[in-house]
Amino acid sequence: MLTGLSAFPLTPMNEQTIDEVAFVGLIERLAAAGVDSIGVLGSTGNYAYLTRDERARITRLAVAHAGEVPVIVGISALRTREVLALAEDAEASGASAVLLAPMSYQPLSDEEVFGLYQDATARLSVPMCVYDNPGTTHFTFSDELHGRIAQLPGVASIKIPGVPVEPEAARERVERLRTLVPAGVTIGVSGDPMAAIGLNAGCDAWYSVIGGLFPETALAITRAAQAGRAEEALRLSQRLESLWALFRQHGGSLRVVATAAELSKLAESPSLPLPLKTLEGRERQALAALLEELALA
Amino acid sequence: MLTGLSAFPLTPMNEQTIDEVAFVGLIERLAAAGVDSIGVLGSTGNYAYLTRDERARITRLAVAHAGEVPVIVGISALRTREVLALAEDAEASGASAVLLAPMSYQPLSDEEVFGLYQDATARLSVPMCVYDNPGTTHFTFSDELHGRIAQLPGVASIKIPGVPVEPEAARERVERLRTLVPAGVTIGVSGDPMAAIGLNAGCDAWYSVIGGLFPETALAITRAAQAGRAEEALRLSQRLESLWALFRQHGGSLRVVATAAELSKLAESPSLPLPLKTLEGRERQALAALLEELALA
Repeated sequence: MLTGLSAFPLTPMNEQTIDEVAFVGLIERLAAAGVDSIGVLGSTGNYAYLTRDERARITRLAVAHAGEVPVIVGISALRTREVLALAEDAEASGASAVLLAPMSYQPLSDEEVFGLYQDATARLSVPMCVYDNPGTTHFTFSDELHGRIAQLPGVASIKIPGVPVEPEAARERVERLRTLVPAGVTIGVSGDPMAAIGLNAGCDAWYSVIGGLFPETALAITRAAQAGRAEEALRLSQRLESLWALFRQHGGSLRVVATAAELSKLAESPSLPLPLKTLEGRERQALAALLEELALA
Repeated sequence: MLTGLSAFPLTPMNEQTIDEVAFVGLIERLAAAGVDSIGVLGSTGNYAYLTRDERARITRLAVAHAGEVPVIVGISALRTREVLALAEDAEASGASAVLLAPMSYQPLSDEEVFGLYQDATARLSVPMCVYDNPGTTHFTFSDELHGRIAQLPGVASIKIPGVPVEPEAARERVERLRTLVPAGVTIGVSGDPMAAIGLNAGCDAWYSVIGGLFPETALAITRAAQAGRAEEALRLSQRLESLWALFRQHGGSLRVVATAAELSKLAESPSLPLPLKTLEGRERQALAALLEELALA
């Protein structure tokens, strides 16, 4: 299940409430496009800014509107107690798999992170994807730690934050990690700008931000790479280079993708929880022009 | 009010509950020692791992047992919506001041952080201390941003993460910041190993972790510095150098101080929320020996 294109939609919200209509619209759009899985309440889904009740509600909505597409649900939280409660909620709400990042406030040690995954996998009956995202969790996995965690029961995939841009180095990085994890544990690339390189280098999945908003665009890259058309995958990704540049400029993909959703009328403005803000003024206009140029809007 | 020794106690807890008896014991110990203020639900108070209800309960307990000592309450959260709710709770529960850090999951921009402080100060009627702690928030304030935020109504103090170790550089750092903030806004040092240097360099307050557990020890340093006995303050701090070394070794003060609380019978074990763990085995024994050597246990 945790292969191909896994699309991570936004959870559009404002200071009062979640925009459930917009969220359901995004889910139905992904199901219609035929993505391989839908990942809700990842970083792009702003899980960290929502209450337990809101997260359960989002999970139920996603499962109800995803059709046959499996739904992966983020259960990350700062505290193990909360992670276990979210795991229970996710299973009860029909999640096909869960995604867990070692979210931190106090910096975590390797042993503490291993303990978190041990406690969580012991309670789960659905597969887990290990979510490695140092940009938001501020925890850096060693390959050795990935190897230890991947032995835990139910671990089915690792979402890595990216790969080296040089194809041979990317392939080596993926193969080195693969030697440390059990057969059957898939490796998925995230960091959209590196996705084509990662898929070409042997990643089994792309955990995709852009796929959550523009699924056809991400599917074209994914299907090309899966069919061995590496050059085509790269070309389709390079076509989006101006978008990747904006991701880098704005400290990640979230603000850019949320602004793109607002500009594309797929979410109302504001769509992000304060203190986070979408792009304004000239930056917003430049993104609008770019979406039009790329025929994404 | 936000001058002198501000002592930050732990919130002892386990997976089931907060150890309210131990917490009240810590508060009464601080009040009896005569600290200048008590800061609950700071990083040492593990605010990030507690629910809104738990935080309100801790605030009420602290105010009820602090006697005449003013209680500063941490209201930090990832989302502005939550910060505003916590501000309301803190005021309703008798907080004399609040402490706000730009806690982050998605990295924050200067404008987003300014907006957070703007929204929070607009709702508050008690003074606010701006909490600058890049080690946990992953946000780095510029002095210029500190200057802008310090103009907001109700901002009464800035808790800076430390000062340069060289006395002249420390003095320059504090004086440079002081030129940017309104008169009357106090500057407090945190990072216990640098506290004596910071107080000697002109900081008005020490926001102290060790002061939350061993108030007499921290008061001796504070009173010496306040009386202009700079050498004595430094000497008293240098006496604790082995403890400061443990703080550095364990990625901050929290695990060391929580272990010290357990060893000193001021908290049950475990006292930290999983996935966080106190020191075990030989490291724990070494700390026990050190506390005895320093006559802290």
